[in-house]
Amino acid sequence: MSGKLDMQPLSDFAVGRVFEAGPIEVTEEEIVTFAQRYDPQIYHLDPEAARRTYFKGLAASGWLTASLSMRLMVESGVCNGMIGSDIERLQWLVPTRPGDLLRIRSEIVEIETSRPKRLAVKVRTETFNQKDEVVQLLISTGIVSRRTGS
Amino acid sequence: MSGKLDMQPLSDFAVGRVFEAGPIEVTEEEIVTFAQRYDPQIYHLDPEAARRTYFKGLAASGWLTASLSMRLMVESGVCNGMIGSDIERLQWLVPTRPGDLLRIRSEIVEIETSRPKRLAVKVRTETFNQKDEVVQLLISTGIVSRRTGS
Repeated sequence: MSGKLDMQPLSDFAVGRVFEAGPIEVTEEEIVTFAQRYDPQIYHLDPEAARRTYFKGLAASGWLTASLSMRLMVESGVCNGMIGSDIERLQWLVPTRPGDLLRIRSEIVEIETSRPKRLAVKVRTETFNQKDEVVQLLISTGIVSRRTGS
Repeated sequence: MSGKLDMQPLSDFAVGRVFEAGPIEVTEEEIVTFAQRYDPQIYHLDPEAARRTYFKGLAASGWLTASLSMRLMVESGVCNGMIGSDIERLQWLVPTRPGDLLRIRSEIVEIETSRPKRLAVKVRTETFNQKDEVVQLLISTGIVSRRTGS
Protein backbone atom coordinates (compact mmCIF):
# COMPACT_ATOMS: atom_id res chain seq x y z
CA MET A 1 0.00 0.00 0.00
CA SER A 2 2.99 2.30 -0.30
CA GLY A 3 2.64 5.33 -2.49
CA LYS A 4 6.36 5.37 -3.28
CA LEU A 5 6.57 4.19 -6.83
CA ASP A 6 10.22 3.33 -6.49
CA MET A 7 9.83 0.95 -3.56
CA GLN A 8 8.45 -1.87 -5.68
CA PRO A 9 10.92 -4.49 -6.86
CA LEU A 10 10.75 -4.64 -10.62
CA SER A 11 10.67 -8.41 -10.58
CA ASP A 12 7.16 -8.44 -9.11
CA PHE A 13 5.78 -7.49 -12.51
CA ALA A 14 6.04 -10.17 -15.14
CA VAL A 15 3.74 -11.02 -18.03
CA GLY A 16 1.48 -13.90 -17.04
CA ARG A 17 1.62 -13.26 -13.31
CA VAL A 18 -1.82 -13.65 -11.73
CA PHE A 19 -3.22 -11.92 -8.65
CA GLU A 20 -6.47 -12.95 -6.95
CA ALA A 21 -8.64 -11.70 -4.10
CA GLY A 22 -12.10 -12.04 -2.63
CA PRO A 23 -14.81 -12.89 -2.09
CA ILE A 24 -16.46 -9.73 -0.82
CA GLU A 25 -20.21 -9.60 -0.22
CA VAL A 26 -22.40 -6.93 -1.78
CA THR A 27 -25.40 -6.05 0.36
CA GLU A 28 -28.64 -4.37 -0.64
CA GLU A 29 -27.78 -1.58 1.80
CA GLU A 30 -24.47 -0.87 0.11
CA ILE A 31 -26.05 -0.93 -3.36
CA VAL A 32 -28.68 1.62 -2.31
CA THR A 33 -26.33 3.85 -0.28
CA PHE A 34 -23.80 3.99 -3.11
CA ALA A 35 -26.51 4.80 -5.64
CA GLN A 36 -27.98 7.60 -3.53
CA ARG A 37 -24.70 9.48 -3.73
CA TYR A 38 -23.16 8.33 -7.01
CA ASP A 39 -25.73 6.87 -9.38
CA PRO A 40 -29.27 7.85 -8.40
CA GLN A 41 -31.21 5.84 -10.97
CA ILE A 42 -34.32 3.90 -9.96
CA TYR A 43 -32.97 0.41 -10.69
CA HIS A 44 -30.07 1.05 -8.29
CA LEU A 45 -32.19 2.74 -5.59
CA ASP A 46 -35.51 1.03 -5.06
CA PRO A 47 -35.83 -2.78 -4.94
CA GLU A 48 -39.58 -2.68 -5.61
CA ALA A 49 -39.60 -0.18 -8.46
CA ALA A 50 -36.51 -1.85 -9.96
CA ARG A 51 -38.63 -4.93 -10.74
CA ARG A 52 -40.44 -2.97 -13.42
CA THR A 53 -37.24 -1.90 -15.19
CA TYR A 54 -34.82 -3.43 -17.69
CA PHE A 55 -32.92 -4.97 -14.76
CA LYS A 56 -36.00 -6.74 -13.34
CA GLY A 57 -34.80 -6.15 -9.79
CA LEU A 58 -32.26 -4.13 -7.81
CA ALA A 59 -28.89 -3.98 -9.57
CA ALA A 60 -25.71 -2.38 -8.31
CA SER A 61 -24.33 0.63 -10.14
CA GLY A 62 -21.56 -0.50 -12.44
CA TRP A 63 -19.39 2.00 -10.61
CA LEU A 64 -19.96 0.12 -7.36
CA THR A 65 -18.90 -3.11 -9.04
CA ALA A 66 -15.84 -1.27 -10.34
CA SER A 67 -15.05 0.24 -6.94
CA LEU A 68 -15.37 -3.09 -5.13
CA SER A 69 -13.17 -4.64 -7.81
CA MET A 70 -10.59 -1.94 -7.11
CA ARG A 71 -10.66 -2.83 -3.42
CA LEU A 72 -10.01 -6.46 -4.31
CA MET A 73 -7.22 -5.45 -6.69
CA VAL A 74 -5.54 -3.56 -3.85
CA GLU A 75 -5.93 -6.60 -1.57
CA SER A 76 -4.50 -8.87 -4.27
CA GLY A 77 -1.27 -6.87 -4.44
CA VAL A 78 -1.49 -6.13 -8.16
CA CYS A 79 -1.61 -2.39 -7.44
CA ASN A 80 1.47 -2.32 -5.22
CA GLY A 81 3.77 0.42 -6.40
CA MET A 82 1.60 1.13 -9.42
CA ILE A 83 -0.20 4.33 -10.28
CA GLY A 84 -3.18 3.63 -12.51
CA SER A 85 -4.26 6.30 -14.91
CA ASP A 86 -5.49 4.75 -18.13
CA ILE A 87 -8.32 2.31 -18.75
CA GLU A 88 -8.88 1.03 -22.24
CA ARG A 89 -11.82 -1.28 -21.54
CA LEU A 90 -14.42 -1.44 -18.78
CA GLN A 91 -17.45 -3.57 -19.42
CA TRP A 92 -20.28 -4.66 -17.17
CA LEU A 93 -21.48 -7.98 -18.48
CA VAL A 94 -23.85 -9.22 -15.77
CA PRO A 95 -25.58 -7.05 -13.12
CA THR A 96 -24.30 -7.27 -9.55
CA ARG A 97 -27.18 -8.18 -7.23
CA PRO A 98 -27.77 -8.00 -3.46
CA GLY A 99 -26.01 -10.90 -1.76
CA ASP A 100 -23.51 -11.45 -4.55
CA LEU A 101 -20.01 -12.53 -3.59
CA LEU A 102 -17.42 -10.91 -5.83
CA ARG A 103 -13.83 -11.95 -6.43
CA ILE A 104 -11.23 -10.82 -8.91
CA ARG A 105 -8.52 -12.36 -11.03
CA SER A 106 -5.93 -9.93 -12.44
CA GLU A 107 -3.33 -11.00 -14.96
CA ILE A 108 -0.43 -8.98 -16.27
CA VAL A 109 -0.81 -9.16 -20.04
CA GLU A 110 1.82 -6.74 -21.30
CA ILE A 111 4.78 -4.74 -20.01
CA GLU A 112 5.94 -1.82 -22.09
CA THR A 113 9.59 -1.11 -21.37
CA SER A 114 10.55 1.58 -23.88
CA ARG A 115 10.81 4.41 -21.37
CA PRO A 116 14.01 4.62 -19.33
CA LYS A 117 12.51 5.44 -15.94
CA ARG A 118 9.07 3.86 -16.01
CA LEU A 119 7.27 0.72 -17.03
CA ALA A 120 3.72 0.64 -18.32
CA VAL A 121 2.07 -2.51 -16.99
CA LYS A 122 -1.16 -3.61 -18.66
CA VAL A 123 -3.49 -5.66 -16.47
CA ARG A 124 -6.60 -7.62 -17.44
CA THR A 125 -8.95 -7.99 -14.48
CA GLU A 126 -12.07 -10.11 -14.45
CA THR A 127 -14.58 -9.79 -11.63
CA PHE A 128 -16.60 -12.92 -10.95
CA ASN A 129 -19.74 -13.53 -8.91
CA GLN A 130 -20.49 -16.64 -6.86
CA LYS A 131 -21.84 -18.37 -9.98
CA ASP A 132 -18.46 -17.81 -11.67
CA GLU A 133 -20.05 -15.44 -14.14
CA VAL A 134 -17.79 -12.61 -15.30
CA VAL A 135 -19.65 -9.52 -14.13
CA GLN A 136 -16.95 -7.04 -15.16
CA LEU A 137 -13.97 -6.90 -17.47
CA LEU A 138 -11.34 -4.21 -16.89
CA ILE A 139 -8.22 -3.61 -18.93
CA SER A 140 -6.03 -0.99 -17.28
CA THR A 141 -2.49 0.24 -17.56
CA GLY A 142 -0.49 1.28 -14.53
CA ILE A 143 2.80 3.12 -14.38
CA VAL A 144 5.62 1.68 -12.28
CA SER A 145 8.95 3.39 -11.69
CA ARG A 146 11.96 1.28 -12.49
CA ARG A 147 13.82 0.52 -9.32
CA THR A 148 17.00 2.49 -8.96
CA GLY A 149 20.16 1.24 -7.32
CA SER A 150 19.38 -2.46 -7.54
CA MET B 1 -34.34 8.71 -13.83
CA SER B 2 -36.74 6.14 -15.29
CA GLY B 3 -35.43 2.67 -15.81
CA LYS B 4 -37.83 2.02 -18.66
CA LEU B 5 -35.69 2.08 -21.73
CA ASP B 6 -38.66 2.62 -24.00
CA MET B 7 -39.90 5.79 -22.28
CA GLN B 8 -37.22 8.00 -23.77
CA PRO B 9 -38.11 9.86 -26.96
CA LEU B 10 -35.61 8.96 -29.63
CA SER B 11 -35.18 12.58 -30.60
CA ASP B 12 -33.39 13.38 -27.33
CA PHE B 13 -30.29 11.68 -28.67
CA ALA B 14 -28.55 13.49 -31.49
CA VAL B 15 -24.89 13.75 -32.37
CA GLY B 16 -23.48 16.99 -31.02
CA ARG B 17 -25.98 17.39 -28.21
CA VAL B 18 -24.29 18.55 -25.01
CA PHE B 19 -25.32 17.88 -21.40
CA GLU B 20 -23.78 19.66 -18.42
CA ALA B 21 -24.02 19.47 -14.64
CA GLY B 22 -22.23 20.53 -11.49
CA PRO B 23 -20.41 21.76 -9.61
CA ILE B 24 -20.25 19.26 -6.80
CA GLU B 25 -17.76 19.68 -3.97
CA VAL B 26 -15.33 16.91 -3.00
CA THR B 27 -14.46 16.95 0.69
CA GLU B 28 -11.50 15.39 2.45
CA GLU B 29 -13.98 13.32 4.46
CA GLU B 30 -15.55 11.84 1.34
CA ILE B 31 -12.14 11.10 -0.21
CA VAL B 32 -11.04 9.21 2.92
CA THR B 33 -14.34 7.41 3.52
CA PHE B 34 -14.51 6.24 -0.09
CA ALA B 35 -10.93 5.03 0.00
CA GLN B 36 -11.40 3.08 3.23
CA ARG B 37 -13.99 0.91 1.53
CA TYR B 38 -12.99 0.95 -2.13
CA ASP B 39 -9.37 1.96 -2.64
CA PRO B 40 -7.34 1.64 0.57
CA GLN B 41 -4.04 3.05 -0.63
CA ILE B 42 -2.09 5.48 1.52
CA TYR B 43 -2.31 8.49 -0.81
CA HIS B 44 -6.12 8.25 -0.71
CA LEU B 45 -6.37 7.58 3.04
CA ASP B 46 -3.98 9.72 5.05
CA PRO B 47 -3.42 13.42 4.29
CA GLU B 48 -0.13 13.51 6.20
CA ALA B 49 1.43 10.33 4.83
CA ALA B 50 0.17 11.21 1.33
CA ARG B 51 2.58 14.15 1.25
CA ARG B 52 5.47 11.72 0.97
CA THR B 53 4.02 9.89 -2.03
CA TYR B 54 3.89 10.43 -5.78
CA PHE B 55 0.74 12.52 -5.29
CA LYS B 56 2.40 14.91 -2.78
CA GLY B 57 -0.83 15.19 -0.80
CA LEU B 58 -4.22 13.56 -0.43
CA ALA B 59 -5.72 12.60 -3.77
CA ALA B 60 -9.13 11.08 -4.42
CA SER B 61 -9.34 7.58 -5.79
CA GLY B 62 -9.93 7.75 -9.52
CA TRP B 63 -13.01 5.64 -8.86
CA LEU B 64 -14.42 8.40 -6.66
CA THR B 65 -13.86 10.91 -9.45
CA ALA B 66 -15.59 8.48 -11.80
CA SER B 67 -18.48 7.89 -9.41
CA LEU B 68 -19.04 11.61 -8.80
CA SER B 69 -18.90 12.13 -12.56
CA MET B 70 -21.60 9.49 -12.92
CA ARG B 71 -23.77 11.36 -10.45
CA LEU B 72 -23.35 14.52 -12.50
CA MET B 73 -24.11 12.62 -15.70
CA VAL B 74 -27.37 11.42 -14.17
CA GLU B 75 -28.20 15.00 -13.11
CA SER B 76 -27.39 16.29 -16.59
CA GLY B 77 -29.96 14.00 -18.19
CA VAL B 78 -27.53 12.30 -20.56
CA CYS B 79 -28.26 8.93 -18.95
CA ASN B 80 -32.05 9.16 -19.24
CA GLY B 81 -33.37 5.98 -20.78
CA MET B 82 -29.85 4.72 -21.43
CA ILE B 83 -28.23 1.58 -20.05
CA GLY B 84 -24.47 1.96 -20.00
CA SER B 85 -22.39 -1.14 -20.32
CA ASP B 86 -19.27 -0.43 -22.32
CA ILE B 87 -16.46 2.01 -21.66
CA GLU B 88 -13.70 2.33 -24.19
CA ARG B 89 -11.65 5.02 -22.47
CA LEU B 90 -11.35 6.20 -18.89
CA GLN B 91 -8.40 8.38 -18.02
CA TRP B 92 -7.54 10.29 -14.90
CA LEU B 93 -5.44 13.24 -16.01
CA VAL B 94 -5.20 15.40 -12.88
CA PRO B 95 -5.74 14.23 -9.28
CA THR B 96 -8.96 15.29 -7.56
CA ARG B 97 -8.10 17.09 -4.30
CA PRO B 98 -10.03 18.00 -1.14
CA GLY B 99 -12.17 21.07 -1.80
CA ASP B 100 -12.30 20.58 -5.56
CA LEU B 101 -15.49 21.52 -7.35
CA LEU B 102 -16.23 19.10 -10.17
CA ARG B 103 -18.52 19.58 -13.15
CA ILE B 104 -19.10 17.55 -16.27
CA ARG B 105 -19.71 18.17 -19.94
CA SER B 106 -21.05 15.22 -21.93
CA GLU B 107 -21.36 15.29 -25.69
CA ILE B 108 -22.97 12.70 -27.92
CA VAL B 109 -20.31 11.88 -30.47
CA GLU B 110 -21.78 8.95 -32.38
CA ILE B 111 -25.07 7.09 -32.75
CA GLU B 112 -24.96 3.62 -34.17
CA THR B 113 -28.29 2.77 -35.76
CA SER B 114 -27.73 -0.58 -37.44
CA ARG B 115 -29.78 -2.63 -35.01
CA PRO B 116 -33.55 -2.59 -35.46
CA LYS B 117 -34.61 -2.28 -31.83
CA ARG B 118 -31.76 -0.46 -30.16
CA LEU B 119 -29.40 2.43 -30.64
CA ALA B 120 -25.86 2.51 -29.37
CA VAL B 121 -25.11 6.06 -28.23
CA LYS B 122 -21.45 6.99 -27.72
CA VAL B 123 -20.84 9.78 -25.23
CA ARG B 124 -17.63 11.69 -24.52
CA THR B 125 -17.63 13.10 -20.99
CA GLU B 126 -15.03 15.45 -19.58
CA THR B 127 -14.91 16.16 -15.86
CA PHE B 128 -13.45 19.55 -14.96
CA ASN B 129 -12.26 20.99 -11.67
CA GLN B 130 -12.66 24.61 -10.55
CA LYS B 131 -9.49 25.55 -12.46
CA ASP B 132 -11.08 24.21 -15.66
CA GLU B 133 -8.53 21.42 -15.80
CA VAL B 134 -9.84 18.18 -17.30
CA VAL B 135 -9.45 15.72 -14.43
CA GLN B 136 -11.12 12.80 -16.19
CA LEU B 137 -11.99 11.74 -19.70
CA LEU B 138 -14.65 9.07 -20.20
CA ILE B 139 -15.84 7.62 -23.49
CA SER B 140 -18.81 5.35 -22.94
CA THR B 141 -21.51 3.73 -25.03
CA GLY B 142 -25.05 3.37 -23.80
CA ILE B 143 -27.86 1.33 -25.25
CA VAL B 144 -31.21 2.98 -25.89
CA SER B 145 -34.33 1.19 -27.06
CA ARG B 146 -35.95 2.69 -30.10
CA ARG B 147 -39.29 4.12 -29.19
CA THR B 148 -42.18 2.04 -30.29
CA GLY B 149 -45.57 3.31 -31.34
CA SER B 150 -44.55 6.89 -32.06
